[in-house]
Amino acid sequence: PPGRKVLIVYAHQEPKSFNGSLKSIAVEELGKQGCSVTVSDLYAMGFEPRATRSDIVGCLHNPEGFNYGVEMWEAYKRGALSKDLVEEQKKVQEADLLIFQFPLYWFSMPAIMKGWMDRVLVQGFAHEFPNCYDSGLLKDKLALFSFTTGGSEEMYAKGGISGDIRYLLWPMQHGIMHFCGIKVLAPHICFSPEYVPEESRKEMLAAWAQRLKTLWKEEPINCSPEWYFK
Amino acid sequence: PPGRKVLIVYAHQEPKSFNGSLKSIAVEELGKQGCSVTVSDLYAMGFEPRATRSDIVGCLHNPEGFNYGVEMWEAYKRGALSKDLVEEQKKVQEADLLIFQFPLYWFSMPAIMKGWMDRVLVQGFAHEFPNCYDSGLLKDKLALFSFTTGGSEEMYAKGGISGDIRYLLWPMQHGIMHFCGIKVLAPHICFSPEYVPEESRKEMLAAWAQRLKTLWKEEPINCSPEWYFK
Repeated sequence: PPGRKVLIVYAHQEPKSFNGSLKSIAVEELGKQGCSVTVSDLYAMGFEPRATRSDIVGCLHNPEGFNYGVEMWEAYKRGALSKDLVEEQKKVQEADLLIFQFPLYWFSMPAIMKGWMDRVLVQGFAHEFPNCYDSGLLKDKLALFSFTTGGSEEMYAKGGISGDIRYLLWPMQHGIMHFCGIKVLAPHICFSPEYVPEESRKEMLAAWAQRLKTLWKEEPINCSPEWYFK
Repeated sequence: PPGRKVLIVYAHQEPKSFNGSLKSIAVEELGKQGCSVTVSDLYAMGFEPRATRSDIVGCLHNPEGFNYGVEMWEAYKRGALSKDLVEEQKKVQEADLLIFQFPLYWFSMPAIMKGWMDRVLVQGFAHEFPNCYDSGLLKDKLALFSFTTGGSEEMYAKGGISGDIRYLLWPMQHGIMHFCGIKVLAPHICFSPEYVPEESRKEMLAAWAQRLKTLWKEEPINCSPEWYFK
């Protein structure tokens, strides 16, 4: 709806890819609805995935032994995070909905996107004990993981060789988003688009566009072990 | 035992850290046993986590649309992977045991180590359908995930707020190692070393040294959904 803000965190090297199409469809459809859409195109930005001393501007809190978590927390509080992180945090802060668009790499997100999680969702900004899980600092936001797989739906079925696809969503949806207080919409999964006919790929893209039309009416999942492991 | 080769893939920024100590203990203890130990110190190497076109030397297989998986597979076959990846693959190829030593970041490994997985374990080298899982190309090797957590053992208990710690091991142990045919030894987990007394930290280090003494007698876990989700 007009006024809603969406951040799409997007990790694919090739604009002409299927992931690129999924991203463009979201930009277009949400734009049509009057949403304000921002894209963090991680590869195009050359986003830094490594958690290092360079993320802190100026002196360290404790130069005797570098503790990334502590240093980032302290740097956040005194406004000394590197510029790229301040910009990403601003986008997150303003967003009502975060969409993560990526190809599944090794049962998880690509390293460049994991680096976004590691570096952007800093203690003090996204969580601060005891403000985690339902009282995480980013509550009142929504997140949606939209991804493509190499393996087929059969491989990712319960009893399939790769196990229920929900098993691998636990770290991303519960461990990261829920921990920060963000409510999780059902994932959007396109199984092995590389290995299906062109017609099926078109149907997958149409289904995503269709889902986006009523996305704001969706209820978040119940992000507890039952949803993942039954 | 003499002659066994071990690769430690290590991801911590600070040599004086608890993770640094765990790594040094492994180097020392396995060295004493006569093993040949190699360490990939990812932060010190400035290891690149991003999966990009730079990983392929020379022309692309299909320059019309960049497909990382396909390009890496083709580049592997024609010996056109970037030098850093060739070196890591050589270390993996020679190793009998891979130890991954890291602090848990967001229910997973730090992005720099995820990048190692994404970029090194290329199709053709580590797997090549249908050679995956029990017939993965790296069979006859062992892997062990050794990591520290921020959260306590109670938080990571079944029924705890963060769920059974085994839930988050599924993508790493089954989705990556097992997929490549590598057998998985029980993980070595040090819960919240930052928040326990110095005495407890010493006990944790001693326990790791002790475990390493009989590591080669251990049987791998049964890496199936039952182990993770009961």
